Amino acid sequence: MLRTHTCGELNKEHGNKKATLCGWVAARRDHGKLIFIDIRDRYGLTQVVFVPSVSPQAHTVAQKLGPEFVVRVAGTVAVRPAKMVNKDIPTGEIELCAEDLEILNPSEVPVFEITDETEPSEELRLTYRYLDIRRPKLRQSLETRHKLCSAIRTFMNGQGFIDVETPVLTKSTPEGARDFLVPSRLNPGEFFALPQSPQLFKQILMVAGIDRYYQIVKCFRDEDLRADRQPEFTQLDIEMSFVTQEDIFALAEPLFQKIFKEVKGIDIPIPFPRMTHAQAMKQYNSDKPDLRQNKDNKDEFAFTWVVDFPMFKYNKDEKRWESEHHPFTSIMEEDLEHFEKGDYAKVRARSYDLVLNGNELGSGSVRIHQRERQKKIFQIIGLSGQEAQKRFGFLLKAFDYGAPPHAGVAFGIDRLTAILCGLDSIRDTIAFPKTQKGNCMMTDAPSEVDKKQLDELGLRKV
Amino acid sequence: MLRTHTCGELNKEHGNKKATLCGWVAARRDHGKLIFIDIRDRYGLTQVVFVPSVSPQAHTVAQKLGPEFVVRVAGTVAVRPAKMVNKDIPTGEIELCAEDLEILNPSEVPVFEITDETEPSEELRLTYRYLDIRRPKLRQSLETRHKLCSAIRTFMNGQGFIDVETPVLTKSTPEGARDFLVPSRLNPGEFFALPQSPQLFKQILMVAGIDRYYQIVKCFRDEDLRADRQPEFTQLDIEMSFVTQEDIFALAEPLFQKIFKEVKGIDIPIPFPRMTHAQAMKQYNSDKPDLRQNKDNKDEFAFTWVVDFPMFKYNKDEKRWESEHHPFTSIMEEDLEHFEKGDYAKVRARSYDLVLNGNELGSGSVRIHQRERQKKIFQIIGLSGQEAQKRFGFLLKAFDYGAPPHAGVAFGIDRLTAILCGLDSIRDTIAFPKTQKGNCMMTDAPSEVDKKQLDELGLRKV
Repeated sequence: MLRTHTCGELNKEHGNKKATLCGWVAARRDHGKLIFIDIRDRYGLTQVVFVPSVSPQAHTVAQKLGPEFVVRVAGTVAVRPAKMVNKDIPTGEIELCAEDLEILNPSEVPVFEITDETEPSEELRLTYRYLDIRRPKLRQSLETRHKLCSAIRTFMNGQGFIDVETPVLTKSTPEGARDFLVPSRLNPGEFFALPQSPQLFKQILMVAGIDRYYQIVKCFRDEDLRADRQPEFTQLDIEMSFVTQEDIFALAEPLFQKIFKEVKGIDIPIPFPRMTHAQAMKQYNSDKPDLRQNKDNKDEFAFTWVVDFPMFKYNKDEKRWESEHHPFTSIMEEDLEHFEKGDYAKVRARSYDLVLNGNELGSGSVRIHQRERQKKIFQIIGLSGQEAQKRFGFLLKAFDYGAPPHAGVAFGIDRLTAILCGLDSIRDTIAFPKTQKGNCMMTDAPSEVDKKQLDELGLRKV
Repeated sequence: MLRTHTCGELNKEHGNKKATLCGWVAARRDHGKLIFIDIRDRYGLTQVVFVPSVSPQAHTVAQKLGPEFVVRVAGTVAVRPAKMVNKDIPTGEIELCAEDLEILNPSEVPVFEITDETEPSEELRLTYRYLDIRRPKLRQSLETRHKLCSAIRTFMNGQGFIDVETPVLTKSTPEGARDFLVPSRLNPGEFFALPQSPQLFKQILMVAGIDRYYQIVKCFRDEDLRADRQPEFTQLDIEMSFVTQEDIFALAEPLFQKIFKEVKGIDIPIPFPRMTHAQAMKQYNSDKPDLRQNKDNKDEFAFTWVVDFPMFKYNKDEKRWESEHHPFTSIMEEDLEHFEKGDYAKVRARSYDLVLNGNELGSGSVRIHQRERQKKIFQIIGLSGQEAQKRFGFLLKAFDYGAPPHAGVAFGIDRLTAILCGLDSIRDTIAFPKTQKGNCMMTDAPSEVDKKQLDELGLRKV
């Protein structure tokens, strides 16, 4: 290590000891003979003092330091007199009296200050993302995201779930949003698609006997980007066999309890309240009700399950029924009669959303596990037998070989991180997000590629 | 839950208690009046007995059971007489005497038996992957992979590393292998690329002050698939600031110690031996030496670091120098004189590989963190200033704003899982792998897409 301690570590216990720190120059104060700098790393900030009589070399080099220079300073830890203690920072009891200073890398003058006090334009922040991430807001957001994912994994592992990776290069089965396509060079004229979710793979894993699956996984949707959508986003994906909706709730509630305890130190009460979709629409005119609107609910974090969604919605333009959740959702047995009569508007699904303060945290359903029922649903939403076979034939085939009853849920990690950090935009929870036009300001992706690359794929631009 | 216990859980402590199990019919033995079935789930196997006098209903339904039917059986746990105990399985002390049997889903006769005793063709195994994963070999491989990743995360989190997600839709910067391309609909004629590794992003995260980064992450290479390569593969990606090669070794060695202890219960000795690339080539004629060849090394797992790789290799066909590791690798200060004289064949890199039993587990390097040095390397490997700017301009720019010294390493998760499981092929460590021709036998990806999808992307097949 080039350092003996981090910039957040030294305190009066280290008094008179030698220490070497590395970090970025956060501030320089030139008091004639004495020069003070604050050096910063991920862990904190330490004041360094350069005294000409202690080290003329260090003092001379210190005169050249500009903001965001990367330095290595060796010296002796000096305990500050009581009245000089800075109580605002953990290292405020000491300063490092420099004996040696090395500039590891100089820096151009940063295009914005590394502080949360002023908020630079998002364009600048995304272009110079490496400067933005040095700001406390972004650093804390990425740290919170890490803590969140770590808490989730500890919980899920403890519950006997297996983390299984599903493919990124997969089959195009467009429904809902558009797929991103990936041309195959080895199979010219054919395409992979990036998964909108691992839905079919997690169901196949249940057929495979995995019993309890989870994954924190990237998903992809080629949408016209509305505010606060990203072409790639991350979800906690869960599926379980031999369970009912109650088991999903009994898993998710203590999971969120643990998340809020570990990340925010807050005890949230469980079980969460539940309301039917019909109630939510009636009472809140929304399927994402914000229970804080209700005067009796004073909690900062108001969770609710919304259950019993309609199974189908009618698409007037295309004059056909569509799935409200997705076509792999099972129906409520109570509504079987409506279903068999073709009275689809009255059929409710065994699907559920978890809503927090008016945000949909996630949604899921008890799935269909029987081939004939699945084929019937495809037919109702207007997929011909041939089309269903072409797109979803592998799922139907899997259902022929002992598919267990199963159910699952998926929660959005980006939004959840934003809520935990009190941030408005999910872009502030993602290290390298895309703009609303779907590009990366830092790398300038997407970009043109060589004609040779397209030739190899058997493609031409129109 | 549809069950009270799993199929691996009941023992004589549960004698005379009621239990309900769910699982797959692994075997049926019809002894006239008595019918025995073994039911199986991820957790184990339990014998169930159907006695007509106990439940005529269950006995009648049991007659219809075929292999891999999914069933739910309720009954009473009967402790077996001592001489009937099956010592081969944890549930061998008991059997479940069925009082109720429900067929949750029938099954076609499986195309191969769910056992490791015979190995079906790989074509069948990949087509019916959901049956293959029910086999002990595949199930254990996925479980081991889960344990491995879980051990890695616990270790890395304990060392203060932050798991940061890097983008999957990124900029095409081809070098080494071909990029997979993703046409952008919102920016017609432009393309994203899937990352060959998060190399540039992890270096940018160091510039951003993240200090200690890791990620278990999918990477993509559009290669002509040789034996045991996959177009998408997973690596443990690590980067640290203010460190030297020694710090990477001091992190990786206890990491592998923990992995082998937790996953295999084996104590591996550290530190690992080291040899230079020159020694490895001389003594083993390989840069991936298998130290077990040496008679003094009797260990089952023989790790070694290979260090001091050449910085460049000469491409005779193209008459130019190439990077041996990658162009972001720093050179050994001892060889600076050769470097400045243009005697590139003599310049060694600060790069290192970890080798286990002749397999490269991972490789890494101390990186360049200075703009001018990085530009010089691009120039040596034949990138024009303009080309370097176009592809890597964002990295060069980041180096202007206080890039710290940093180093990193990446380890292949697929190969490591294969070694831990004693498997030859990485395909057996991946839930849904591609064939050597780069397609998925189960879903039939890649596949043709609608002309409308191509139109939206502004592309036409040639």
